[in-house]
Amino acid sequence: MKAPKYSGVATFFGLPSVTDLSQTDIAVVGVPFDLGVTNRAGARHGPREMRNQSTMIRQHHQLLRMTPTDLCRIADAGDCPVQNPYSLEDGHRDIETFYTQLAQADTVPLTAGGDHSITLPIFRAIARERPVGMLHFDAHCDTSDEFGNTRFHHGAPFRIAVEEGLLDPERTVQIGIRGSLGDEDTWKFSHDSGMRVVYMDELLDRGYQAIVAEARELLSGGPVYLSFDVDGLDPAFAPGTGTPEIGGISTVEAQAMLRAARGLDFIGGDLVEVAPPFDVTGTTSLVGASILFDILCLLADAHASRA
Amino acid sequence: MKAPKYSGVATFFGLPSVTDLSQTDIAVVGVPFDLGVTNRAGARHGPREMRNQSTMIRQHHQLLRMTPTDLCRIADAGDCPVQNPYSLEDGHRDIETFYTQLAQADTVPLTAGGDHSITLPIFRAIARERPVGMLHFDAHCDTSDEFGNTRFHHGAPFRIAVEEGLLDPERTVQIGIRGSLGDEDTWKFSHDSGMRVVYMDELLDRGYQAIVAEARELLSGGPVYLSFDVDGLDPAFAPGTGTPEIGGISTVEAQAMLRAARGLDFIGGDLVEVAPPFDVTGTTSLVGASILFDILCLLADAHASRA
Amino acid sequence: MKAPKYSGVATFFGLPSVTDLSQTDIAVVGVPFDLGVTNRAGARHGPREMRNQSTMIRQHHQLLRMTPTDLCRIADAGDCPVQNPYSLEDGHRDIETFYTQLAQADTVPLTAGGDHSITLPIFRAIARERPVGMLHFDAHCDTSDEFGNTRFHHGAPFRIAVEEGLLDPERTVQIGIRGSLGDEDTWKFSHDSGMRVVYMDELLDRGYQAIVAEARELLSGGPVYLSFDVDGLDPAFAPGTGTPEIGGISTVEAQAMLRAARGLDFIGGDLVEVAPPFDVTGTTSLVGASILFDILCLLADAHASRA
Amino acid sequence: MKAPKYSGVATFFGLPSVTDLSQTDIAVVGVPFDLGVTNRAGARHGPREMRNQSTMIRQHHQLLRMTPTDLCRIADAGDCPVQNPYSLEDGHRDIETFYTQLAQADTVPLTAGGDHSITLPIFRAIARERPVGMLHFDAHCDTSDEFGNTRFHHGAPFRIAVEEGLLDPERTVQIGIRGSLGDEDTWKFSHDSGMRVVYMDELLDRGYQAIVAEARELLSGGPVYLSFDVDGLDPAFAPGTGTPEIGGISTVEAQAMLRAARGLDFIGGDLVEVAPPFDVTGTTSLVGASILFDILCLLADAHASRA
Amino acid sequence: MKAPKYSGVATFFGLPSVTDLSQTDIAVVGVPFDLGVTNRAGARHGPREMRNQSTMIRQHHQLLRMTPTDLCRIADAGDCPVQNPYSLEDGHRDIETFYTQLAQADTVPLTAGGDHSITLPIFRAIARERPVGMLHFDAHCDTSDEFGNTRFHHGAPFRIAVEEGLLDPERTVQIGIRGSLGDEDTWKFSHDSGMRVVYMDELLDRGYQAIVAEARELLSGGPVYLSFDVDGLDPAFAPGTGTPEIGGISTVEAQAMLRAARGLDFIGGDLVEVAPPFDVTGTTSLVGASILFDILCLLADAHASRA
Amino acid sequence: MKAPKYSGVATFFGLPSVTDLSQTDIAVVGVPFDLGVTNRAGARHGPREMRNQSTMIRQHHQLLRMTPTDLCRIADAGDCPVQNPYSLEDGHRDIETFYTQLAQADTVPLTAGGDHSITLPIFRAIARERPVGMLHFDAHCDTSDEFGNTRFHHGAPFRIAVEEGLLDPERTVQIGIRGSLGDEDTWKFSHDSGMRVVYMDELLDRGYQAIVAEARELLSGGPVYLSFDVDGLDPAFAPGTGTPEIGGISTVEAQAMLRAARGLDFIGGDLVEVAPPFDVTGTTSLVGASILFDILCLLADAHASRA
Repeated sequence: MKAPKYSGVATFFGLPSVTDLSQTDIAVVGVPFDLGVTNRAGARHGPREMRNQSTMIRQHHQLLRMTPTDLCRIADAGDCPVQNPYSLEDGHRDIETFYTQLAQADTVPLTAGGDHSITLPIFRAIARERPVGMLHFDAHCDTSDEFGNTRFHHGAPFRIAVEEGLLDPERTVQIGIRGSLGDEDTWKFSHDSGMRVVYMDELLDRGYQAIVAEARELLSGGPVYLSFDVDGLDPAFAPGTGTPEIGGISTVEAQAMLRAARGLDFIGGDLVEVAPPFDVTGTTSLVGASILFDILCLLADAHASRA
Repeated sequence: MKAPKYSGVATFFGLPSVTDLSQTDIAVVGVPFDLGVTNRAGARHGPREMRNQSTMIRQHHQLLRMTPTDLCRIADAGDCPVQNPYSLEDGHRDIETFYTQLAQADTVPLTAGGDHSITLPIFRAIARERPVGMLHFDAHCDTSDEFGNTRFHHGAPFRIAVEEGLLDPERTVQIGIRGSLGDEDTWKFSHDSGMRVVYMDELLDRGYQAIVAEARELLSGGPVYLSFDVDGLDPAFAPGTGTPEIGGISTVEAQAMLRAARGLDFIGGDLVEVAPPFDVTGTTSLVGASILFDILCLLADAHASRA
Repeated sequence: MKAPKYSGVATFFGLPSVTDLSQTDIAVVGVPFDLGVTNRAGARHGPREMRNQSTMIRQHHQLLRMTPTDLCRIADAGDCPVQNPYSLEDGHRDIETFYTQLAQADTVPLTAGGDHSITLPIFRAIARERPVGMLHFDAHCDTSDEFGNTRFHHGAPFRIAVEEGLLDPERTVQIGIRGSLGDEDTWKFSHDSGMRVVYMDELLDRGYQAIVAEARELLSGGPVYLSFDVDGLDPAFAPGTGTPEIGGISTVEAQAMLRAARGLDFIGGDLVEVAPPFDVTGTTSLVGASILFDILCLLADAHASRA
Repeated sequence: MKAPKYSGVATFFGLPSVTDLSQTDIAVVGVPFDLGVTNRAGARHGPREMRNQSTMIRQHHQLLRMTPTDLCRIADAGDCPVQNPYSLEDGHRDIETFYTQLAQADTVPLTAGGDHSITLPIFRAIARERPVGMLHFDAHCDTSDEFGNTRFHHGAPFRIAVEEGLLDPERTVQIGIRGSLGDEDTWKFSHDSGMRVVYMDELLDRGYQAIVAEARELLSGGPVYLSFDVDGLDPAFAPGTGTPEIGGISTVEAQAMLRAARGLDFIGGDLVEVAPPFDVTGTTSLVGASILFDILCLLADAHASRA
Repeated sequence: MKAPKYSGVATFFGLPSVTDLSQTDIAVVGVPFDLGVTNRAGARHGPREMRNQSTMIRQHHQLLRMTPTDLCRIADAGDCPVQNPYSLEDGHRDIETFYTQLAQADTVPLTAGGDHSITLPIFRAIARERPVGMLHFDAHCDTSDEFGNTRFHHGAPFRIAVEEGLLDPERTVQIGIRGSLGDEDTWKFSHDSGMRVVYMDELLDRGYQAIVAEARELLSGGPVYLSFDVDGLDPAFAPGTGTPEIGGISTVEAQAMLRAARGLDFIGGDLVEVAPPFDVTGTTSLVGASILFDILCLLADAHASRA
Repeated sequence: MKAPKYSGVATFFGLPSVTDLSQTDIAVVGVPFDLGVTNRAGARHGPREMRNQSTMIRQHHQLLRMTPTDLCRIADAGDCPVQNPYSLEDGHRDIETFYTQLAQADTVPLTAGGDHSITLPIFRAIARERPVGMLHFDAHCDTSDEFGNTRFHHGAPFRIAVEEGLLDPERTVQIGIRGSLGDEDTWKFSHDSGMRVVYMDELLDRGYQAIVAEARELLSGGPVYLSFDVDGLDPAFAPGTGTPEIGGISTVEAQAMLRAARGLDFIGGDLVEVAPPFDVTGTTSLVGASILFDILCLLADAHASRA
């Protein structure tokens, strides 16, 4: 007999809390940090609420026909500590340090953000030795130039990641891009560097199967990081985020694309930009937790394949 | 000149309240009972709020091109009384008693739940003489085994209904199934007993028309009960429910499937699991009331055909 | 360096406020008026909240590949003054007066409503000389007869507009129609007068491309007004409106249809029926502001083409 | 055994619905009308939601030590029909007609509004023969002059009532007045006509007992109407109203004042300006229903005393 | 440097989680159980949300001038397991078993409910050997007779506790009583058994100091349990509860009374009936967590005094 | 005839927008900046929402019997620009620059925050020449030491202000202090430096009149700044703030204290820490706007006295 879903201290998916990573294949980590946002803050509260909602999720993934905890050792590694909550650069340094420990323990990280700027220090920890490919769901390319006298905000991580040799732009697929921009060149870096940018009109007209098939081809043959910005989804599905853009991906399509990506060599993933203060109904945190579970399955499957 | 929609005591669709069923072909009934839930309670408040939202609905169904009150005599029969709000079994007994009276008056029941466990005592009242077929929309098969030392919760009604000879599994179609499970065998009974289980990925990939066509074939030639668990819909459309699962059916698809099912011999129906405390915006109660109206049209059409 | 989106007094899209219209090609105007509703009031608060949410939108439209402020001179002309907030007819007269000034200045109006009754006095101001065609998104045809002893409510504007020779019914396309009606003849005028009525089931089954292609054919060759009632969208996308109907258009489809309509000779547009008191999450105001921006692009493009 | 509070069709306090008033001493009536507001509409939805919340209230008033249904015959008389929802004056005429029927049946009216303008037509029905006194809780005196070219809005009823000889200003006590005004003479009529105006600072500094003692003295010796505008309360207690003013009465004080007013010859009462669209938490409707019950007790007690 | 309040897995007040009670003087325990409610369920979610909000609270109590963790060893003991979530009696048995273990370890329990029925099994565990006194804040006496064919619901615990010899009625003070009742004898048992019942009107008129002074006298000279039903507070302060009653205690008064009760020999306490589904703003969970902290200080102070 | 309150672009109290300060005696300024918070961000959205709610406020203050715009020239000076939204120190520098311009124009500033850290740079601009006294409403003394490796956060401004010679601690009165602290010495600086700290228990027991009388004595004879942190109020009145503490001041008391402080030589004021994302009902923004209006009256009165 299991305890009711609403009972007990909330960890991710009811997983055990660990501090010693040596017996952990995959660590689910919270990064309650949102100093990188340009508009509405709140993603700092994302890990807490996604832990809460994740307790509604059970062990077995019905459509993927997979129980990740049967495939490898998975734990909740707590929240990444951030010493100075007032400095974007200091925060990124703390995150890099924490994920370097995970990398050294050969633990695959699954991250609940936090804003999207945090993927940059994660890359610095796990992609030092060779650039990774990326399957990226988002309304925004996040490859803009500096903003507010800093280059390290949530609209820029992937440009910097390419410049630092951490991300292979030719093995990067960005899906769900749309909305308004300050000028038409805002995401120029994505195109110039060779990323495959899938705008919403292409997704709508060609259908998700064609897009994923192409993505699989581009991404196979090397390690892949999966970065899911919840604002890639339409605000009807995920209203609680800092920079919503209408006309986005539905959860049905997103989950189908994730399932279709099974088999790629995923070595890490994140779900970012869930901002509970803007999520009156709690729906976005539930969506975040559910997609984290989808990603966890992909990571577990890939980890088991590598073993 | 009609009264404004927001005025007056709220009955279902503004129908007259009746206690004498002898002049009533179809009775809309509330069952404010949710002791069967395994997670979040609240469906006890469903009938009240669906009555409230249903007053926004007018008599004529535009896409079905039908005015149900022109086809038969329809009334709001109030809420099913429950003597002991603390016992699942006692509650089910009270529901069975109430629906037996409806059955004896030859009145077709359309039920606003309450949790999904209530469909079992309804079946006990109306399917005593021969098993019925079922068109079932839901995120969950609701055919699991015992939970919390009882077999009668909202995750089990259809297994018990088959075991008691009330439901014909080979004439049962379950649409919208998805989400996580305690283990991979949770819904094994559905498959083993011969139910047709349509997972969300199949619905997405084959399209609603193919699914309904197949369902019509399986369900024709006998009486059909229509059970609609509002969590079959995606939480974007119906957030206010006890066990939400992302990646579900849209209201557009659901309503199209209901319209396409016209002509089957429907002998009863329900809309369950609307939980107003989790429905901050009132959207789910409106969805529940609207789909109740769709089902009412199907029941009225079938009743008229039988006359 | 731009100011953060949340800073400063909120005008539409951060545009300059003007009172002198002589240097303005397109004026964005608020009409905070909702005396025409038959059910839930609240659209009077629409302009304020859409101004608020519109500050999240930037200058360049990414999928339309267009920066409207590069094409023509655009400004926020404030809210249309209404002298008597207690009389529907007086209010319509005030609106007509204000838009007549816009028409005399050759300024194209883009209106944030307000309920749908306001489109009638706008037509009286801008379509005096020749009837206009209309691309109309809505759950309701808005061509019913009198209600509550008045003909001027939000369910009737387009019938009166045809009768007054302002709107050409044979160049009118209504998309998204659905829901329940008081009787089957409620929208009879649309059919009898020759409007093209696209019900939701047709949109679902034929796909948006086919619908827009047909609409383009009907609407080309003359001036077109674009009227977007936010209740044309499904309540999952736009819950905050006075007369929601489930089973509606998604924002993805709506925006794709708007993009596909580019090239028609748009001479005005509106987005109406956003009712903030029913929009707990703010989503509907964001949707309203975003679609206003889509329409602004179409107006700017058409204006530039005419120049 | 009683039915659970959340079950059944919602009437005021679970009272029987009546249309024949001949056996009814006190009728609870809804007036879903709010065309008189100058700012935020929504009180049209007040009766529906107060009916809903009132089902949480039981028969016996614990602090007043009274069971009103033991003292006289009380029923829910439904909502006052309004023929033209677009005209303030027509609406007032319909209300007057309905209450005249109540007056002719010698039925004491307890009204759930609706906006405060409705008290004027109620007075026209019940105070024709002699002016009444009034115990009035409100943030506003509601004795202003014309607004928006009409005199009949929710800021004016009591000035007109005095001018028409329906209300005795020297037997009128207004409690809770505060907030900002268009100019310092807005409520001049109250002072000039001899009403006793109790501003919030006086209530705070002298205490509720002193205020009620004085009110009892002024109001005894003749019939008294009790009019309670929910915005007399602080928005912490009653946020869901059209014209909230901070710094108001607490529910504890308000209820104590009502209890202390027992014994006056109350011949009618109302609770107005509950606007559910602004009442996200439902608190204001609960407050409205609870204070309606307090007033019902006062009316029943006075009615029994007169018998 | 401390971690930000929003970071990390949420335990009560950030206390360590323990399962071994031997080193724990005071255990904070969640009891996510609400089968005892007669109206709105939801208190099952109370422990989770109070843990969440409690992380905003720091170690030192400023007005009590006390740091409880300096006085004794305090831990979060998790949630009490409940085997059968469908049976009120079975649930109470599980709770009694769990608290018996606490009692055997000489650990003082501080409980976050759950509905008020849970205090009965707690008493069965900790008051077996001698009846305890009780300082009780509540809108309801909770001493009614059977309801719905069971005696064990949330309106009855203290009657049964007296009958079982667990609670000394003459050393019981109930503060904040008000609202409507099914009949005037509902709380008769309180009066007949000798409990001191302080109705809201007495609290308002005599002031909190007089009430607490009297309570101290009655309660001194023996062990005291502190039971705080959050509905004792006015719904303005604590809307998120199952049976709200307007006209209640303010948090300022409640906290002043708690501070004034310092020095009594408290041997346990609880805060019950926080129902997060009805707490849209989160305020009630914050209030619950804050008052739990006040009670924790009283328990720690009393424990230190006994040492 | 005035425009309805909900119409038009929202400026503070409907005041004219100005950029030239030379004709402005008092400027209402927004500072949408919240990088100083230690817990929940969101005050960056405060100015926008307080502008919105402030349009419900009229010109004349009824209890103060004063029309501030009759006394001096008042305008909305827009939002203080902040160049780098990622650096606390840079932001403070920008704020200081902006307010220095106000000081040089001899314009009295009334500020809508933003978090409380912004009062420090305001002091640097306006108190350079001589230290000011302060009437300070808050739950927190805001005189703590460094946090997160920085001294400039929202818990420290007044300690630094004293150290920099901008604030006279012996002419500083802090009212409403309460809640939990990291340790008992957190606010030690307030006591050691000679500030008068009024804890909530003192306010409750002595009453507001005694407190203000004492404050008037301490603060007379020199310039006074009025700083109102909305968390000084109880969360029932102002839930939408970053660091709520229960058991606080009511709006009735707060406004009475402000009125009683009339006559002091106020030379500036602010209302800070309104965090709209946590203000689901909009109540806190309304409270913020209303108290800004109270402060505006005090500033206008003092300015007129000095003239």
